[in-house]
Amino acid sequence: MKHLFEKMKPKEDKFFDQLHQMGEIIISVSDQIIDCVKVSNHDDALKFYRAIKDLEHKADQVQNEIFEALNNTFITPFDREDINDLSATMDDIVDLITSCAKRIVLYNPKHIPESAVTLALLVREAAGYLLDAVNELASFKKRPERIKSLCASIEETEKKADDVYEHFLINLFENAGDAIEIIKLKDILHELERAADAAQAVGKRLKTVIVKFA
Amino acid sequence: MKHLFEKMKPKEDKFFDQLHQMGEIIISVSDQIIDCVKVSNHDDALKFYRAIKDLEHKADQVQNEIFEALNNTFITPFDREDINDLSATMDDIVDLITSCAKRIVLYNPKHIPESAVTLALLVREAAGYLLDAVNELASFKKRPERIKSLCASIEETEKKADDVYEHFLINLFENAGDAIEIIKLKDILHELERAADAAQAVGKRLKTVIVKFA
Amino acid sequence: MKHLFEKMKPKEDKFFDQLHQMGEIIISVSDQIIDCVKVSNHDDALKFYRAIKDLEHKADQVQNEIFEALNNTFITPFDREDINDLSATMDDIVDLITSCAKRIVLYNPKHIPESAVTLALLVREAAGYLLDAVNELASFKKRPERIKSLCASIEETEKKADDVYEHFLINLFENAGDAIEIIKLKDILHELERAADAAQAVGKRLKTVIVKFA
Repeated sequence: MKHLFEKMKPKEDKFFDQLHQMGEIIISVSDQIIDCVKVSNHDDALKFYRAIKDLEHKADQVQNEIFEALNNTFITPFDREDINDLSATMDDIVDLITSCAKRIVLYNPKHIPESAVTLALLVREAAGYLLDAVNELASFKKRPERIKSLCASIEETEKKADDVYEHFLINLFENAGDAIEIIKLKDILHELERAADAAQAVGKRLKTVIVKFA
Repeated sequence: MKHLFEKMKPKEDKFFDQLHQMGEIIISVSDQIIDCVKVSNHDDALKFYRAIKDLEHKADQVQNEIFEALNNTFITPFDREDINDLSATMDDIVDLITSCAKRIVLYNPKHIPESAVTLALLVREAAGYLLDAVNELASFKKRPERIKSLCASIEETEKKADDVYEHFLINLFENAGDAIEIIKLKDILHELERAADAAQAVGKRLKTVIVKFA
Repeated sequence: MKHLFEKMKPKEDKFFDQLHQMGEIIISVSDQIIDCVKVSNHDDALKFYRAIKDLEHKADQVQNEIFEALNNTFITPFDREDINDLSATMDDIVDLITSCAKRIVLYNPKHIPESAVTLALLVREAAGYLLDAVNELASFKKRPERIKSLCASIEETEKKADDVYEHFLINLFENAGDAIEIIKLKDILHELERAADAAQAVGKRLKTVIVKFA
């Protein structure tokens, strides 16, 4: 009896809490990657990678908790598949940042260009909008304008990240000597550009949720 | 009162018009990119890139109008999240073509191979099928065969684009001297191949819509 | 009359059969690619590519049959768009493996590293979990634990595939001489890594289906 009652009780807050947690982890990995792309030696890179890896495990746990909670809750604040998609897409951002850090450690490039820091800062900016947007989920039905404007900001940030990535590539080609070094740096920064893309993908999911309740 | 009435009035035509507009923009950017990959000097490339960039802004506007209309309309011709996804995926095609043009301008490759023209023509072909398919949306419930056959044509075109891209790569590797030039051209043509992929993704969305009403 | 009756009769078994078929094709292409990456001459590679290409055609047929069946059946075991998405995403795995084989034939690399075999074996492992998971679809509402644990195994396999791919890249960079050979091998193995990603994408779709029925 108690179990059923537990299952029927609306647990809206729980999902908002969990998505908020996910958003905070994204903030933390973004902060770490800003420092990670600034390192000049392998040991420091390894230190940041380990911290990021720990956060990635946490994100996986939260995503799993959300999935399990969805399987044990009758009433959800919006479509259960959208909550699941949202948390999975947020987890993608964490995975891509982790992959960027991992590649820095593995490829051990001679020098990481300044544009990597700019890209990381843009990912951090998008992460900030994202956390704000997720925090709006509890009240977006009453005031959708705020979350819509945050989604627009994420999109703009993604366009900026595209620009930075493309200008990084021109510089890379122009100052190039070593083709292997080019491939390494391209691969490392590409993960950051993809992280910005993933933030935009979360924005799209949020817009889908909004549209359903219009 | 009037506002509520306005909101309740079916506005099917509006969405079909807007998706049609989006389809026409895709046709226009495809036409532009065909000429853009043929250029032999940087100034001409820049001219085409600017024209494409303008069209990209237009596409963003239309996508935004669709999103806003979805938020202000009670009755939609099919699921509102599908209309939103459809317009977002159509916008992806425009973004990838824009990115191709931008890379031509930024990387300034020595020579763009003929296969880029072939790829651009295939993207244009897919765009034609896509516009026809979108125009069928108003009547697909009565006659789904036409839209299904157009989706199949888009898929075939995408397979052709894959082939062209892969054969371009072999030629690139065989005649290769400069690794940096290889990376540049690979990156430029890859955006066109991805544009064909995005057209296929729109085809998949259309099939999802059809399946829901089967 | 008969037609309508035919259309109304639940045809759950048919969809489970078709998805099972799709899963078996994935197993077969995975088996073929394991041998294909071991070849040391172009003729053998061509032989495996042709066998894989035949299987790809079969997968396209099954996918089309599923789509047509969805358009001719009133009652489906779960949301028709999810069945369609599931078969489309399963088909993506087949396409990526085919693309890997095609690139081996087209690029004709000097030597395929051992890590390609490891990657192919991981794709095969994921394919095994996937087939088991698809076979659970008929009964997951009664016992969701099994399918959930299989999805978790697919995710773990994908992480392993990521690791193998990244370690392959370090070795490639370390022992590098020829930048073109690097680009070729990177491209070939990347398709296998993407095949593992696609398996994970199927896992995500399965979780969406589970969540909807929670």
